[in-house]
Amino acid sequence: MSDRLIYLPLGGAGEIGMNAYVYGYGPEGAERLIVVDLGVTFPDMDGSPGVDLIMADAGWLEDNADRIEAIFITHAHEDHIGALPFLWPKLRKPVYARAFTASLGQQKLNENGVNTQVTVVEPRPEVIEAGPFKVQFVPISHSIPESSALIIDTPAGRVVHSGDFKLDANPIVGEPFDVNMWHEIAQEGEGIKVLTCDSTNIFSHLPGKSEATLIEPLTKLIQMQEGMIVATTFASNVARLKTLADAGVAAGRSVCLLGRSMKRMVQTAKETGVLKGFPSVIQPEEAAEIPRENLMLIVTGSQGERRAASAALSRGKYLGLEMKEGDAFLFSSKTIPGNEIGVIKIMNAFSEMGVEVIGDRGGLYHVSGHANRPDLEAVHDLLRPKMLIPMHGEHRHLREHMKLAQSKGIASEIATNGTMLDLAGDTPKVVEYIETGRLYLDGTVLIGALDGVVRERIRMALNGHIMVNVIIDEDGGPLGDPWVETMGLPPKGRSGIALEEVLEQELTEALDRAPGKVLGDDDKIEDLLRRQARTCSLEEIGKKPEVTVVVSRLMDE
Amino acid sequence: MSDRLIYLPLGGAGEIGMNAYVYGYGPEGAERLIVVDLGVTFPDMDGSPGVDLIMADAGWLEDNADRIEAIFITHAHEDHIGALPFLWPKLRKPVYARAFTASLGQQKLNENGVNTQVTVVEPRPEVIEAGPFKVQFVPISHSIPESSALIIDTPAGRVVHSGDFKLDANPIVGEPFDVNMWHEIAQEGEGIKVLTCDSTNIFSHLPGKSEATLIEPLTKLIQMQEGMIVATTFASNVARLKTLADAGVAAGRSVCLLGRSMKRMVQTAKETGVLKGFPSVIQPEEAAEIPRENLMLIVTGSQGERRAASAALSRGKYLGLEMKEGDAFLFSSKTIPGNEIGVIKIMNAFSEMGVEVIGDRGGLYHVSGHANRPDLEAVHDLLRPKMLIPMHGEHRHLREHMKLAQSKGIASEIATNGTMLDLAGDTPKVVEYIETGRLYLDGTVLIGALDGVVRERIRMALNGHIMVNVIIDEDGGPLGDPWVETMGLPPKGRSGIALEEVLEQELTEALDRAPGKVLGDDDKIEDLLRRQARTCSLEEIGKKPEVTVVVSRLMDE
Repeated sequence: MSDRLIYLPLGGAGEIGMNAYVYGYGPEGAERLIVVDLGVTFPDMDGSPGVDLIMADAGWLEDNADRIEAIFITHAHEDHIGALPFLWPKLRKPVYARAFTASLGQQKLNENGVNTQVTVVEPRPEVIEAGPFKVQFVPISHSIPESSALIIDTPAGRVVHSGDFKLDANPIVGEPFDVNMWHEIAQEGEGIKVLTCDSTNIFSHLPGKSEATLIEPLTKLIQMQEGMIVATTFASNVARLKTLADAGVAAGRSVCLLGRSMKRMVQTAKETGVLKGFPSVIQPEEAAEIPRENLMLIVTGSQGERRAASAALSRGKYLGLEMKEGDAFLFSSKTIPGNEIGVIKIMNAFSEMGVEVIGDRGGLYHVSGHANRPDLEAVHDLLRPKMLIPMHGEHRHLREHMKLAQSKGIASEIATNGTMLDLAGDTPKVVEYIETGRLYLDGTVLIGALDGVVRERIRMALNGHIMVNVIIDEDGGPLGDPWVETMGLPPKGRSGIALEEVLEQELTEALDRAPGKVLGDDDKIEDLLRRQARTCSLEEIGKKPEVTVVVSRLMDE
Repeated sequence: MSDRLIYLPLGGAGEIGMNAYVYGYGPEGAERLIVVDLGVTFPDMDGSPGVDLIMADAGWLEDNADRIEAIFITHAHEDHIGALPFLWPKLRKPVYARAFTASLGQQKLNENGVNTQVTVVEPRPEVIEAGPFKVQFVPISHSIPESSALIIDTPAGRVVHSGDFKLDANPIVGEPFDVNMWHEIAQEGEGIKVLTCDSTNIFSHLPGKSEATLIEPLTKLIQMQEGMIVATTFASNVARLKTLADAGVAAGRSVCLLGRSMKRMVQTAKETGVLKGFPSVIQPEEAAEIPRENLMLIVTGSQGERRAASAALSRGKYLGLEMKEGDAFLFSSKTIPGNEIGVIKIMNAFSEMGVEVIGDRGGLYHVSGHANRPDLEAVHDLLRPKMLIPMHGEHRHLREHMKLAQSKGIASEIATNGTMLDLAGDTPKVVEYIETGRLYLDGTVLIGALDGVVRERIRMALNGHIMVNVIIDEDGGPLGDPWVETMGLPPKGRSGIALEEVLEQELTEALDRAPGKVLGDDDKIEDLLRRQARTCSLEEIGKKPEVTVVVSRLMDE
């Protein structure tokens, strides 16, 4: 049998978030492997209340850890690097990234007490040999510095893993999308066999706009303001931070950055040499002394995050600074689906203060970091891959991208998380389905999404919780009455009597009626009281709560 | 002192949803009152998990029930009528509405066992006398039949309460916006003193489009489909149901309605005479027999609701019908902020089936039911009110609408829920702040939003729940060790030992160390064990769970 060239997404394919891709080359089942990106996605109350981070289940990788050669990180967005400190200890393989990404990754590892060093890689022509793979990092423009595509050369041909990218000839920070270099990459050897490609903006039908288009409208906007202006964007969008700060300075304002992650990003970008010419900023203490019409704040919290600076300002004073009537607040960002309510809440809080809230105004004050449909088509045409595997998208994005590729005569296949493709031939072939899932970082513990822990929390949130205590005495009969406590339930219902009292009454009667063989068996007592408590609650308050029954049995000494 | 003309929003002002407005006329504190609309808003996991409906706190109305003359319902959208069965029993006053609205309201009252009759009102010139008020219903176009504005004539002048409306000269179902009639209304007597006006679409800068613009593009779209087409919209948007069904029939398809609420709406609209010429529809059993290219389904669930027909179809077979590769699914609707995730989930499920998902395509397949900014300006110009009170909007909508009115020289004021205005003079005057809030229908019980019940549920969802049982014997010492159960927590943490075991060990030690004055006091025991359990959990799993401690004390007989 011939060697396989496998592609296996464990996260990021069929969703936007928690990217984790595997490539392998070798005999079936013994392919040598590399991992591309280990990202997280963020929890929400609907599906994952109380969870801190969500990442791909590394079970398959763990089981095959001896086959893994290396881990490559394309860029430092959380959905590509965030899981590194939590999954690395299960894999313990060399990690490669460019300087800025490596520095942020190293900070994450250190903070979580993980003792390994990320190896800093220079972009092409440097080549990392990893088993049968020769990997090069290729600079590509995106909304964070040093974003990279990977050239993955294999004995079966050249794979290009696009990473997240846009076509930007003037990205303000970092390298532009270099058409000539990509043309060269496409011409080398046999050309490109497989393009694994970002699908995020496949439904955006106009060509994307350059970061450089923003400086003029932003400067004008800031000049027009009579009070303080506060702007928010993603902390990691260092180019935008520079554009905003430059616009602020051009409009004659002192600029102050608020938010821990933003300061860290700017500092890391400066230290690693990717950010030059960032205007000098002032500290919050100084800012408080400056006339508001001469001041601009750039703050974290573009997605309405409760703990970020924008939310803090929407609640009142923050680090001595405060929004007032006549000030303006600019979202130089797009709201990610699911974050609307949080963002709207902040908008309304500012409205109550008399603060003008300004959105992206159809691309005037914000541009996306991903390639739109016409840009993707341009890349298809430039790289002329034999196969295109859409990645980084929900199913609808992957499907649309596949259809687009197929319409141009490029072989394509949808591979969602867990779908293993063999790319050794001329067309992608589904060869296996791997069981995948999600891990939750819950406090400091990693649990499986389907372990039931979070499901119990969701049930308590929806239904409330009844706790029943019963003591069975030495003779096998109930000692006193069952004791009921409730949490998250109305104090009383239909009868007008306290719910706990009604339940205790009902459960006492149920126990009194219970035959000896029930009273002799803790499981049977629990079952009886649980059912009774739920039925009685339904009657009283129209809800069927979760019930925990604890039976304490006194023993003869 | 002179009589006051008061306006008091209890819901719907500072939010979109749960509309409830009060007008009053008379001496201060003794004004006779009318209530306009009693609506609900919908819960979400973030703020109100497990809650069934949310409505305005009727406390102030209850306290002043003897001053209330009547309740008027402008139209049958849930955010205007949904709270009627739950709040009416607290007020017990006559309810007035037009026929279609009255019929739906009556069904709600009956279903909830509330024994009162809604009085059917004919539109202007019929006048309802309610204390000092003379009220007329004026037909207005919106996205549900028989939507009405109210003319509220008072001794202090004429108030127009716009209700929800758009300018539509050809709304397909129901009456068009009648410019001549409104001109007449503005000319009568002293003209219009106050316009209380819908603010929903104040940020939409293009003129709104007529329902009638949809039939042609929809017909073309349906004609192009090679498989089955399924369309969803709000069940209450009877005009849209007719447009969709007409388009389906024009495209040569049999039409089938799926979803209980949709059938009820169509039936009620037919029975009350507002819907004529609705094409004949087929039943699901028949639909299953028809070639899919000849079939169109119109289904509930445009907002991604889990129990609606669209979600059911996205999961698989529903009433014998199933989506297949080559079919198309049309959202003839806008996604309400907060519902994106649910809608996207359905889109992706259809994508996995190979179903084409079609959105509103920038207004080609959906038009809004609310007046856009230029339409609102046209109404201001037509009615020429002395004062404009923006309602039906979040704070940012109200503020923008106020600014617009003021820019035209119309006196205006933002009154959010609980803000009482006196409109007797030439400008609105804030005279009082009433304590308002929200009621939750939780199962069958009404609870206050701030009662803490739902907060407990949210805490359990975020933090998990630990239950501790301690038995104190006749001598005042612990009988056996404390017993710990957990719900919604990882089974083990840092130490690798079961969390419940670690907790039992720690709590046993804590109890052993506890002095007699602690053991003699249940509250002190609870406090000790709660703190200990939280500290120990933080150490083990990095979370601080909710803790319930139950102390059972054995007594000498």
